[in-house]
Amino acid sequence: MPQTSQPQRPGWSVQPRRSACAALAAGGKGREMTRYTGAHALWAGLLDQGVDTCFANPGTTELDLVRGLESFPKLRCVVALQENVCTGAADGYGRMLGRPASTLLHLGPGFANGIANLHNARRARTPIVNIIGDHTSWHLPYDAPLSSDIESLAHPVSGWVHRITGTADIAAAAAESVRQSTAAGGQGSTLIFPADFQYADMAEASPAAATEKDTGQADDYRADQALARLQGAQRVVFLLGGGGEESGLGARAQRAVARIAAHIGCSVYAETFPARAERGQGLPSFDRLPYFPEPARKVLDDADLVVLVGALPPITYFGYVGHPSALVAPERLLTISLPGRPAAGRVEQLADALGAPAYVTPQHALPPLPEGELTPQKIAAVLARELPERAIVSVEGGTCGYPFYAVSDAARPHTVLTNTGGAIGQGLPVALGAAVACPDRTVVGLLSDGSTQYTIQTLWSLAHENARVVVLIAANHQYAILRNELRRDGAPLGERAAQMTALDHPRIDWVGLAQSYGVPASRAETAQQLQQQLQAAFAGTGPALIEMAL
Amino acid sequence: MPQTSQPQRPGWSVQPRRSACAALAAGGKGREMTRYTGAHALWAGLLDQGVDTCFANPGTTELDLVRGLESFPKLRCVVALQENVCTGAADGYGRMLGRPASTLLHLGPGFANGIANLHNARRARTPIVNIIGDHTSWHLPYDAPLSSDIESLAHPVSGWVHRITGTADIAAAAAESVRQSTAAGGQGSTLIFPADFQYADMAEASPAAATEKDTGQADDYRADQALARLQGAQRVVFLLGGGGEESGLGARAQRAVARIAAHIGCSVYAETFPARAERGQGLPSFDRLPYFPEPARKVLDDADLVVLVGALPPITYFGYVGHPSALVAPERLLTISLPGRPAAGRVEQLADALGAPAYVTPQHALPPLPEGELTPQKIAAVLARELPERAIVSVEGGTCGYPFYAVSDAARPHTVLTNTGGAIGQGLPVALGAAVACPDRTVVGLLSDGSTQYTIQTLWSLAHENARVVVLIAANHQYAILRNELRRDGAPLGERAAQMTALDHPRIDWVGLAQSYGVPASRAETAQQLQQQLQAAFAGTGPALIEMAL
Repeated sequence: MPQTSQPQRPGWSVQPRRSACAALAAGGKGREMTRYTGAHALWAGLLDQGVDTCFANPGTTELDLVRGLESFPKLRCVVALQENVCTGAADGYGRMLGRPASTLLHLGPGFANGIANLHNARRARTPIVNIIGDHTSWHLPYDAPLSSDIESLAHPVSGWVHRITGTADIAAAAAESVRQSTAAGGQGSTLIFPADFQYADMAEASPAAATEKDTGQADDYRADQALARLQGAQRVVFLLGGGGEESGLGARAQRAVARIAAHIGCSVYAETFPARAERGQGLPSFDRLPYFPEPARKVLDDADLVVLVGALPPITYFGYVGHPSALVAPERLLTISLPGRPAAGRVEQLADALGAPAYVTPQHALPPLPEGELTPQKIAAVLARELPERAIVSVEGGTCGYPFYAVSDAARPHTVLTNTGGAIGQGLPVALGAAVACPDRTVVGLLSDGSTQYTIQTLWSLAHENARVVVLIAANHQYAILRNELRRDGAPLGERAAQMTALDHPRIDWVGLAQSYGVPASRAETAQQLQQQLQAAFAGTGPALIEMAL
Repeated sequence: MPQTSQPQRPGWSVQPRRSACAALAAGGKGREMTRYTGAHALWAGLLDQGVDTCFANPGTTELDLVRGLESFPKLRCVVALQENVCTGAADGYGRMLGRPASTLLHLGPGFANGIANLHNARRARTPIVNIIGDHTSWHLPYDAPLSSDIESLAHPVSGWVHRITGTADIAAAAAESVRQSTAAGGQGSTLIFPADFQYADMAEASPAAATEKDTGQADDYRADQALARLQGAQRVVFLLGGGGEESGLGARAQRAVARIAAHIGCSVYAETFPARAERGQGLPSFDRLPYFPEPARKVLDDADLVVLVGALPPITYFGYVGHPSALVAPERLLTISLPGRPAAGRVEQLADALGAPAYVTPQHALPPLPEGELTPQKIAAVLARELPERAIVSVEGGTCGYPFYAVSDAARPHTVLTNTGGAIGQGLPVALGAAVACPDRTVVGLLSDGSTQYTIQTLWSLAHENARVVVLIAANHQYAILRNELRRDGAPLGERAAQMTALDHPRIDWVGLAQSYGVPASRAETAQQLQQQLQAAFAGTGPALIEMAL
């Protein structure tokens, strides 16, 4: 094995590889040399910033990045069969660890396949670094088949988009991409990396200084003013936003707000779709703000002060005739902390300033073990009873999501991840990413059948990684949310509308589907079967899927 | 059933439905009235232009369009479980019929899921009308969870993007969207339709005049000059581009070019990835221009005239060190017709002007029936022998695609559709769309396992529609194209690179996967088994999948 002529970087080893360029120049094959390429510089730069996990679906314009992996044994790459799996998994990973994973995607079309879950990640304020290989820069003017306007595709889901234009800025771009991913409370950053710069020989760059995660509050919060408004209000509603441990739905902030609520007699709601929330025994039992405008307005219309703890001002999810989009006028809002920013310290300070007594740990009663044919409520009860301590529950779909939330206050302490942006097909990839981020915790995907189909290829990655994810599919064989919306006006479902929202011709065999991807699976028709299958799945060390017949 | 108070349109029937607005205004339920809404106007406008098929994956912001379907029994809606299935199917449909289907997609994220196959459709010049529901217009300023910059996402794959801004322009926008989809030789047109305008009551618009399909040639072709250049050249290569029946790869143009080639002794190639090409017995056997630059240059470097018949000037697919992107300098090019424009008349005229004798129908010999374990060549031979007359073959993936092309000149006359834009996951949806467009023809998907996974949900729609599609999966359990590219420089495959391109841990059980979606499936390990299973599949009336073990 020839020695490298380039200085070795500490922390990674350069493996010799065949140089395509040298071989072409020499007109022959077989001459080995060691090179430090632009691809090496990017991986090294990301690793320097702590980005050691990549969810990847590469193609021809990312092959030097693939080749470069040989030199970075510490860099974990998780392969997925479709790009929305990569981006959703990076979202789940980032939500759990508060630092970005990277994604490796193939040109504009490959990136496009991952946009929907980047949209969700944007709403969750998840730090993610997308790496998109592009054509060799000198090939771009020819509008080759795979050319497209990557920037136009990237901007809607990226707070920062950067095209690498030479080898000189690769290391700096890597560092900046990570810094940008944690800016503004967390966002997507997207690096477009033409193949020739990945491939280029370069002098080894010195590592960029570790970047600081942006955790500052860019607001004009004043504790004394907040206290005065709280004390002056009659009907107060707290609205808590999710995120990391210091968020409004972290354990600390929840306990502090519970102290305030017990002291001043206000009501408290979690935002409807938090990026991440703590839940279960030991924590208060806050309802979620209802999804539809009528019940949401019942909660909010009478309040003279709505206190936002890391939540956005409440708006309706869609525009509904007869309801305002903004559910609370600005003058009735009090912002304690902005979304994506730490909130716990401020609400603890408020609780103390109000003289609120210490937190009293509530005792939530578990629902009794149900029997007989499954219903969403029975599924919720069984899961709440069986959920392991510190489980992570990725919830997508209302069929079981709402019933589970109603009883999950009594489950063992766990973390909930929800669909933040409404682009369905998020729940299963997020579960994969959470399992990669937290291999010591059990992950549960509590999912609906319609939405899970969008990124069904995730099942293969679960098997490939032997990820500890228990997938629960509420199999009602319809787009139930659309039927609910169609029926909101009281009209019967039209024949065509029923056809368009039916998934029962044919019914998908979820057990066979999971097994075909190497995921052990079973089907539960009764509460007892579900309990037994859940216990078996939680006792395992890899993935499992349970089709829950509804 | 109450009578409508709106005049009835000829050709469709207004079904009464419950008015959400009226119900809200009345504060009660149950009052029925008939309305002619913006959604009706759009569907009516599209039907007026002959757009009678929609590939749909709607959500809450498209529900009035779904409700409106009750009034249009002639409008066929094909539901898919993921949007890239919708757009790919619309591509296959448009390629076969030369007129657009519509797609119905949910906001920015739903559209984003379909971008990759719209990218392919753009390269195929397929007319498509995308309908994207958006938030109610007055809800947009609130940046609700599902809000995004739809225009930024749409422009890279749409020749025309239009946002409906009121009820006044709905009918005109429908007509213009269809006209635009056939402009510039065929392109995507995208209509953004806010939910409030779908829902709005409106006076019934008079139907827009039927628009003319744009079939003109916008070029400066002169037959006498073309003839002179042909006669003055020594080493001529024809390059034929695909598309409709009048394209360079339609039967007429192929026969005319064969006359020329026989007369002047030139060589003829099909473009590497035609949108649509005729092939088989009775037609000439033209090779495809090779994919990699070295063999492509062997074909092109020596030519002093490269004649483009509906093909683009040849460029390399990616940028390759040591090779120019543009393989032929402009002064060596002669354009007979532009891509997407009729070519047959001009080459027939050229053949006559050159005094070329009549077309002599060639006899291509079928390969012998192979035996034993499957190889790509054996698969190709069996398929070439068994392919039904007038079959449509959607090819994606090189594993079997190239070997089949090598022998398909001897198959019964058939139509080939290939991956035009390089965004993989196209082959199966295109097959679905072709089957919807041409229910009297058998469709074959000759596909690779890696690429088919991107839009695997298509299988459900095949079963749901009982589409006559025989899916052949070349199951080599790897991203073979990437391994080929990685090995191009002669280096061995690195360990990590091998892992990143392996799909064999676990191996996907394609038979179980297809069956779980309701598609009958079998597995062939030998040529004899493949032959038997193909015969059975072709004798059926619905979909079937054969996993071909490699």
